[in-house]
Amino acid sequence: MDFADVTQRLQGDLDRVEDRVRRAAQVEFPALGRMLDAIVNSGGKRLRPALLLLAARPFTYDITPLIPAAAGIEMLHTASLVHDDTIDSSLLRRGQPTLNSSFDPGTVILIGDYLFAQSAILAAETMNPRVVAVFASSLADICDGQLREVFTAHRLDQTRDEYEKRIYGKTAALFAGAAEMGAILGGASDDDILRIRAFGADVGMAFQIIDDVLDVRETSDTTGKPNNLDLRQGTVTLPTMLYMAQNPGADEAALVQHVVDGRDVSDEEFARAVTLIQESGAIDEAVAAAQAFVDRANATVAPLSNRQAVADLAAFAHVALERVF
Amino acid sequence: MDFADVTQRLQGDLDRVEDRVRRAAQVEFPALGRMLDAIVNSGGKRLRPALLLLAARPFTYDITPLIPAAAGIEMLHTASLVHDDTIDSSLLRRGQPTLNSSFDPGTVILIGDYLFAQSAILAAETMNPRVVAVFASSLADICDGQLREVFTAHRLDQTRDEYEKRIYGKTAALFAGAAEMGAILGGASDDDILRIRAFGADVGMAFQIIDDVLDVRETSDTTGKPNNLDLRQGTVTLPTMLYMAQNPGADEAALVQHVVDGRDVSDEEFARAVTLIQESGAIDEAVAAAQAFVDRANATVAPLSNRQAVADLAAFAHVALERVF
Repeated sequence: MDFADVTQRLQGDLDRVEDRVRRAAQVEFPALGRMLDAIVNSGGKRLRPALLLLAARPFTYDITPLIPAAAGIEMLHTASLVHDDTIDSSLLRRGQPTLNSSFDPGTVILIGDYLFAQSAILAAETMNPRVVAVFASSLADICDGQLREVFTAHRLDQTRDEYEKRIYGKTAALFAGAAEMGAILGGASDDDILRIRAFGADVGMAFQIIDDVLDVRETSDTTGKPNNLDLRQGTVTLPTMLYMAQNPGADEAALVQHVVDGRDVSDEEFARAVTLIQESGAIDEAVAAAQAFVDRANATVAPLSNRQAVADLAAFAHVALERVF
Repeated sequence: MDFADVTQRLQGDLDRVEDRVRRAAQVEFPALGRMLDAIVNSGGKRLRPALLLLAARPFTYDITPLIPAAAGIEMLHTASLVHDDTIDSSLLRRGQPTLNSSFDPGTVILIGDYLFAQSAILAAETMNPRVVAVFASSLADICDGQLREVFTAHRLDQTRDEYEKRIYGKTAALFAGAAEMGAILGGASDDDILRIRAFGADVGMAFQIIDDVLDVRETSDTTGKPNNLDLRQGTVTLPTMLYMAQNPGADEAALVQHVVDGRDVSDEEFARAVTLIQESGAIDEAVAAAQAFVDRANATVAPLSNRQAVADLAAFAHVALERVF
């Protein structure tokens, strides 16, 4: 089952979600309206709305409350990206231009808050208190992930557990929330809601690990855009952690620490650290970790009786991995 | 009826609200935790939670869902203040230090987002979809007010309607939302919910007009703290609008325009503009406008059958005005 086939079947519903997202981003101030349009329309693959819709498919697929729920999740994702970019540039103060580097922080805060408000209105439109509670706690989890990014991401001695908590907040929490909201609105049993939520969380973990792998693996030479952003910002991700766990020589370990510290790092030192990690086998290990999350996700939903829905979810999970092949 | 007596009767409930607000602001990162504590504990008079509780009093006063609702409203207010201060300092780029001038914008965004998330979780805890919808649309109204502040507040030719829309978003929307949430949770009829909401909105308008009056009326000499902040930032409020509506001489009008434009304004020019407005009668006119909102608020709830509750609401409304006498 190819995910392109799945999205094709969802397309009518996704178009309605898209329409709600765009309408929710309309304001009466033209200058801001153009900025919001640009942000909302640059929205990428709409993975989270697709997951929310797929999560309802095994059960009762009443589209009415699913549309605002899916639009709300996408809006929440967009709002968090808008703020995230500002937090990066203002807290880390080094490295690369962010998406929003051309706007001043005050404008970005306003845009983000406005999108948060719209996302909350969309979630409330489901009129389902349990869905709203999941929505609100997903937002809290995202904030928790952002806080962990600020307070722990730059330590080379962080544990695997710390890394996983951080990427849970950064990415998996919203996948989990989208899946849970879909299952609740689909009328799933409590057991099945837990299964679908766990599926979403695990797939989200895989997505973020693969994002982290791609950040290390690709170079600006091959893609023409800035890469190795995490390392440039001193953010320690799984490939770097796995490299350090291989007990490299003292010189190599010191070089990686120097790059993570980020003070007076020469281009040569940076390139050598990236090459060390790339050639260490840590990339393959990290991909295997992502594969393990996807395998567990698929095993979790395997018992659901709707075979088509299980296959669709597996196709969705595979999207996390296919970007590295 | 004195509002001090009213709050004394509410004190037990307000203490429980306070406890929920503090617990919701706890995080596992000590540095941030101390900042959040400081923000949450500097919270002032807790007017919005008091209004929410009072709005339920005429009806069924089941405290269980009122506590998280009131804590959620206070949290939302705090979050919006946190972001507001950053927006002011980064968008306007002139004038005075804000509450949060010692934190960098990224940290402030995170703190605000975290408080927004906690406020949404508290609102969701009521398990009442209608309450959550009011909560979400109040947040949207606040954002709308902030946008109006950015896009229209600096124009001397704004209409009274534009000013009122702006202060509605800035202050009255959350008063209206708090009152409506309380009435809904109190089990009021739809008619009474509308009455209570209108009461909250009008009292909120009066609060903001009086804030705007105090900003013009007080001087740093008398209070020892920075004043006339609005004019320093080029924000046009009701007293200035009423002064201009008196058709002052061409020189005076040009001076006020110059101060609002904010470029190369000398201390003497600034002081003279403030004095012109202070001595014009515009202050008294603005206070009368606030009084009219309070009168209308009291008339709106007068038909409610619970006399004690009506008297308590009137005492609350009077708090808006008593600050100028």
